Amino acid sequence: MQAEIITIGDEILIGQTIDTNSAWMGAALNDVGVDVCQVRSIRDTADAIVAALNSIHPDTKLVLMTGGLGPTKDDLTKYTLNDYFGGQLAYHEEVYAHIEALFARLNRVPNEMNRGQAMLPNVCTPLSNPNGTAPGMRFHKDGVFYVSMPGVPYEMKGIMSGEVLPWIESTFMDQPITHKTLLTHGVPESELAHMLEEWENELPEPLKLAYLPSPGSVKLRLTARTGDHLQNVATIERQFEKAKEILGDVVFGEDAQNLEGVIGVLLKRNHATFATAESCTGGSIAAKITSIPGSSSYFLGSIVSYSNEVKVHQLGVNEAEILVHGAVSENVVRQMAKGVQKRLHSTYSVATSGIAGPDGGTPDKPVGTVWICVAGPNSTKAEKFQFGNNRARNVKRSVLMALDMLRKMILEDEKRSI
Amino acid sequence: MQAEIITIGDEILIGQTIDTNSAWMGAALNDVGVDVCQVRSIRDTADAIVAALNSIHPDTKLVLMTGGLGPTKDDLTKYTLNDYFGGQLAYHEEVYAHIEALFARLNRVPNEMNRGQAMLPNVCTPLSNPNGTAPGMRFHKDGVFYVSMPGVPYEMKGIMSGEVLPWIESTFMDQPITHKTLLTHGVPESELAHMLEEWENELPEPLKLAYLPSPGSVKLRLTARTGDHLQNVATIERQFEKAKEILGDVVFGEDAQNLEGVIGVLLKRNHATFATAESCTGGSIAAKITSIPGSSSYFLGSIVSYSNEVKVHQLGVNEAEILVHGAVSENVVRQMAKGVQKRLHSTYSVATSGIAGPDGGTPDKPVGTVWICVAGPNSTKAEKFQFGNNRARNVKRSVLMALDMLRKMILEDEKRSI
Repeated sequence: MQAEIITIGDEILIGQTIDTNSAWMGAALNDVGVDVCQVRSIRDTADAIVAALNSIHPDTKLVLMTGGLGPTKDDLTKYTLNDYFGGQLAYHEEVYAHIEALFARLNRVPNEMNRGQAMLPNVCTPLSNPNGTAPGMRFHKDGVFYVSMPGVPYEMKGIMSGEVLPWIESTFMDQPITHKTLLTHGVPESELAHMLEEWENELPEPLKLAYLPSPGSVKLRLTARTGDHLQNVATIERQFEKAKEILGDVVFGEDAQNLEGVIGVLLKRNHATFATAESCTGGSIAAKITSIPGSSSYFLGSIVSYSNEVKVHQLGVNEAEILVHGAVSENVVRQMAKGVQKRLHSTYSVATSGIAGPDGGTPDKPVGTVWICVAGPNSTKAEKFQFGNNRARNVKRSVLMALDMLRKMILEDEKRSI
Repeated sequence: MQAEIITIGDEILIGQTIDTNSAWMGAALNDVGVDVCQVRSIRDTADAIVAALNSIHPDTKLVLMTGGLGPTKDDLTKYTLNDYFGGQLAYHEEVYAHIEALFARLNRVPNEMNRGQAMLPNVCTPLSNPNGTAPGMRFHKDGVFYVSMPGVPYEMKGIMSGEVLPWIESTFMDQPITHKTLLTHGVPESELAHMLEEWENELPEPLKLAYLPSPGSVKLRLTARTGDHLQNVATIERQFEKAKEILGDVVFGEDAQNLEGVIGVLLKRNHATFATAESCTGGSIAAKITSIPGSSSYFLGSIVSYSNEVKVHQLGVNEAEILVHGAVSENVVRQMAKGVQKRLHSTYSVATSGIAGPDGGTPDKPVGTVWICVAGPNSTKAEKFQFGNNRARNVKRSVLMALDMLRKMILEDEKRSI
């Protein structure tokens, strides 16, 4: 089945909000075999909403809309849809009871605007919103279903998971699209493509390859839109095995995995613990690692040493080394890694020290110079990188590179212990 | 002038990539007075690209496209546009020289695929890509300009800043749209709307109000699309002054400001320093603070104490208190804040300890229970919050709440010292 997504709201068009909803909905629909052919962000005017509804693709059977359902006066979606589908607004007792219950939990009482949210078109099926006061709505016209949800991601996700996805699964049966993704780090797209050229030319018929690059990392996605789903999965997995032989430890995972999750698995498997000493990454490695539920079983903590005093007093870096070599140097980053490993009693540690920018560069150490050290039970390894001029990007690339250096060290230690 | 954005690539439709490019382009266009009426994400097939180009809004004068320009075989945009605009591919010497120079910087040599990137339609104006090998392209047909750029955000931004935005400013003159935004934290949308009801009803004619909620925070945006730009700015500023009188310190900033930036200004103004002791936020407060360039002048560092041992040995928390009250308690979070303030010699500190979830809750302390303490030169303040079940959201809300508590304490200390 083919679907479309329409997000309503000027905030996306003027760049005030990044549209994370569409990606989440796209992934959720894909999982249940629904194929999204287009995502549109439009203005929150009645004209724009009607024009979008009048220009859906002829094969589309389901339209998911988000936005414009708040309690305030700038939210037009409900009134526009009511007119478009020819309904009347009617008071829904059970919707108001839900609003009251939500407010009671916070020891507050709904106001008149919240009461207005219980007025819904009589031509829609209300969809329960466990996380907010604005219910979702489902309409049906000329063989196409239309679902309208609030734009707050948390509320949209609650309605999708509780109402929309189960309804799709029970109402439609479809040929699933098969996607699988191989995740790589540290080799640029064109070099990967060169390494994989022969493999790519020999890919069997239903499979289509896409390279998806992001800073430091490239995803290789194989897709099959025809044929048997399980057979396609098996075909893709065979091809991935071949690609992994060619690429070796450049591949760090598959599909929805990420470096921080893969590292969690590796640390648990080896009954090892981890700590970080962060200067230029400012706590971002720790934040990434602790985004994984259960990370407290292997992550002990971090000493974010933004000032040199913290490097000396909390990590035991030799002050003279900082004076002689500078804080961004191999000697200092090695002492930081060993210092946190020793003080927090961790099996592994990483340390970062660099010039994130935009200022602070010198001819010797321009902006983007980053030293990273990983320390383990058997070895330490320090490496210098030259990233670019963009602060946020330099931090992001340093975080991924530090995690990838850790991953490779744990894998080497595993081989060593066999 | 009216523009549209088209992003090309299945990765957005299947939710593998979040479309951050459109938000960036939308904001950049808005700044130079260009009005984006629609953003579309479409499949990377020739049919979908042609269908999108054939269905632009009749008033649109500029179409910005990203994606599908990589060196690999799955990238169809260049060939499709060449056919659509009736051109021939031709070798561009200066484009290849740029590719060679980029590779030389990395001590590498371009391969055959990179050489293919110097083949461009003879009906386009090539746009220099300082950050990558795929040049941008500009086409013109029937009074509409079309710009095609790579989908890698860093490369798109380089072409936009270096080529597209200066060209727009020199080629088009337009009535700018006036937007200004007031930023609030800690009060829900419906309550804000209630507080501002009278103010909202008396807003003068050209101004349109929008509430933009996100977890913990609501933005109030006033927009004027008609009338004189400078006069509209003045009108909005007068209205913002009135709103600030009503809302008090609920307002933390305007427009592109953020809490971490506002705090940087406050700390510098008071010659104060800051440190964090983070358990459930896992380094995210430090990462947020250090995302601001120049934060090293006031941010000393953080002790991320994920394990209790680190709380005891690196922060000086009394082990008995952890045994009696648990790590998620007022006593422990107070000791953490005072511990890091003392050990890192900072003027201010914040500490967090909570149950981020999804596991680890108890009937007494369910998932989402978070204690936050802020310590300053004159006082400490600890508060308990009950957030929800979502780990990432709990961390995000804790970070914002900790920063907002710090902001309010610095403002109080400023008043005290007058």
